[in-house]
Amino acid sequence: MTLKNDLILRAARGEKVERTPVWLMRQAGRVLPEYREVRAKMGGFKELVETPEFACEVSIQPVDVLGVDAAIIFSDILVIPEAMGLPYQMIEAKGPWFEKTIKTAADISQIKTASADDLHYVIDAIKLTKKELNGRVPLIGFAGAPWTIFAYMIEGSGSKTFSRAKKFLYTQPDAAHQLLQKITDSTINYLKGQIAAGADMLQLFDSWAGVLSPEQYNEFALKYISQICDAVSEVPMTVFAKDAQFARRGMGKLNCSAIGLDWTMDIAESREMIGSSKTLQGNMDPCLLYSDYGTIKKETIKMLKAFGPQRHIANLGHGLYPDIEKDKAKCFVDTIKEFRF
Amino acid sequence: MTLKNDLILRAARGEKVERTPVWLMRQAGRVLPEYREVRAKMGGFKELVETPEFACEVSIQPVDVLGVDAAIIFSDILVIPEAMGLPYQMIEAKGPWFEKTIKTAADISQIKTASADDLHYVIDAIKLTKKELNGRVPLIGFAGAPWTIFAYMIEGSGSKTFSRAKKFLYTQPDAAHQLLQKITDSTINYLKGQIAAGADMLQLFDSWAGVLSPEQYNEFALKYISQICDAVSEVPMTVFAKDAQFARRGMGKLNCSAIGLDWTMDIAESREMIGSSKTLQGNMDPCLLYSDYGTIKKETIKMLKAFGPQRHIANLGHGLYPDIEKDKAKCFVDTIKEFRF
Repeated sequence: MTLKNDLILRAARGEKVERTPVWLMRQAGRVLPEYREVRAKMGGFKELVETPEFACEVSIQPVDVLGVDAAIIFSDILVIPEAMGLPYQMIEAKGPWFEKTIKTAADISQIKTASADDLHYVIDAIKLTKKELNGRVPLIGFAGAPWTIFAYMIEGSGSKTFSRAKKFLYTQPDAAHQLLQKITDSTINYLKGQIAAGADMLQLFDSWAGVLSPEQYNEFALKYISQICDAVSEVPMTVFAKDAQFARRGMGKLNCSAIGLDWTMDIAESREMIGSSKTLQGNMDPCLLYSDYGTIKKETIKMLKAFGPQRHIANLGHGLYPDIEKDKAKCFVDTIKEFRF
Repeated sequence: MTLKNDLILRAARGEKVERTPVWLMRQAGRVLPEYREVRAKMGGFKELVETPEFACEVSIQPVDVLGVDAAIIFSDILVIPEAMGLPYQMIEAKGPWFEKTIKTAADISQIKTASADDLHYVIDAIKLTKKELNGRVPLIGFAGAPWTIFAYMIEGSGSKTFSRAKKFLYTQPDAAHQLLQKITDSTINYLKGQIAAGADMLQLFDSWAGVLSPEQYNEFALKYISQICDAVSEVPMTVFAKDAQFARRGMGKLNCSAIGLDWTMDIAESREMIGSSKTLQGNMDPCLLYSDYGTIKKETIKMLKAFGPQRHIANLGHGLYPDIEKDKAKCFVDTIKEFRF
């Protein structure tokens, strides 16, 4: 099916666009009253993720309500550890929690390499969402980057320092590589399944990139991201490594289409470090959306000018915060859609 | 009194040293069984901070036990908001918590500019520690940088995003500047009091530098750090802004002696950005100390070589984690003290 709006795909591939396309990380979420309504009917976050009809409904909401140029499938990066054999709970106001974690090499041999079939509920949600979108905008699939998934599998929950996960890198580097490879293989299977189901574009989220040293990031993170980019090249891929200022030159060499920036990364400096062959995505501070409308417009236009008219996909530098007013998020989107260079 | 070991002061001033000096952030703390013993006798963390005899005792412990080249006064950055009128509690395993926070400009007019007298217990602890150290090594005083103190005064606790504090910057910028100025004035009074009491060197901790954009960091953080550096220049000052990769060029222009680096900051790149007129401090990943002794030695020597023999004060890139073995911390210190270029 031909897409009626393929701006994001063209921007990702470096083709000319008439205006900058925009979507928002965590656009399918609590910012929308429409989402909160669906959520209230369900048992919880995971039930929503695991029920294709609901995942489809909330994935399409921001296209209708905010007018963004892409939908992203409503899911969670932690479905991969679960498919590998470590189930998780999402605890309200606390975050994810794993009953079982990886402590030794023996634990690693007991978990499996996941296949796309193991994540059939996401695959089904993608198929359904593609059908319901009916070609209006592209559908983005995603997965966590291997280091971030590894960090949760060792740590068992969120953490300020992820010191347990990092301790594992220092004390059991061979086992760490074994686990990272298993996660990478699972992620490749999963992303290929997402493409087969209809995903038009993919994003890898390396949420905890910022706790590693540049050297460790190369060894334990970038190497596996690189494997994924090489293995999954059928559709454009965006790599977003939050807080990884130091990894920008390395990311410029990946076999991917786009690099996500957070708001602490200077735009001109990032372009210089990453080079001209990649599309840049981002990078507004999510807190800007607490401002008044005038400030939001002014700062958004400043951002657009700093990126320039081509090879940019507008977005925030992180997910939408749940207490942002929907109309403020819409103001950000509208400002981008109305702006012409 | 002449100092028997003034290596750190000479390194900070850019004078020639025979070997690289070393101290550890959070060296007076739970890593030492000797600290845990004193702590067990006390009601809690704050009682320790507020009792000069105990603060003195635990400040000197790492000099005896680890053999570091400086003591740092045992205290907390949150004594400043408390002296200004916002008392805090330190909740075990959770961190700081403020009952009252700043919400409006009216709240700001109700808090006071603190004087050194308001923090007499820290001043007394410094005097006592100086006396007890008897010139063995320099004593480092410290304070939180204004943005970090501001962030706690608005947020009321730790936070992953400090989105409430950042919202205040976006929605009430004038009031934010007023509060930042009041914190800055209080901090200058406090640090001058520390010098008068005998502190040989000072450090400003900007723990939450990493949540701001480069532009906001210049406007709401660096400007006030700069005021402090200009006002307090009697002894060498180190500025440590964690995760503020983007601020390194700006910090190179401060009127201070040393800049602290965390482990995500590449050493050669930081030297290039900061310039040759500053001493660099840091920057080992605290998690290295989970490794075996051989790895600790190898990585520590690699770090020393990357910084070079002069204008470097060896340290971690963040505070010691409480579950590090004392002997591993000592191995890091010993490796530095034994190494010769």
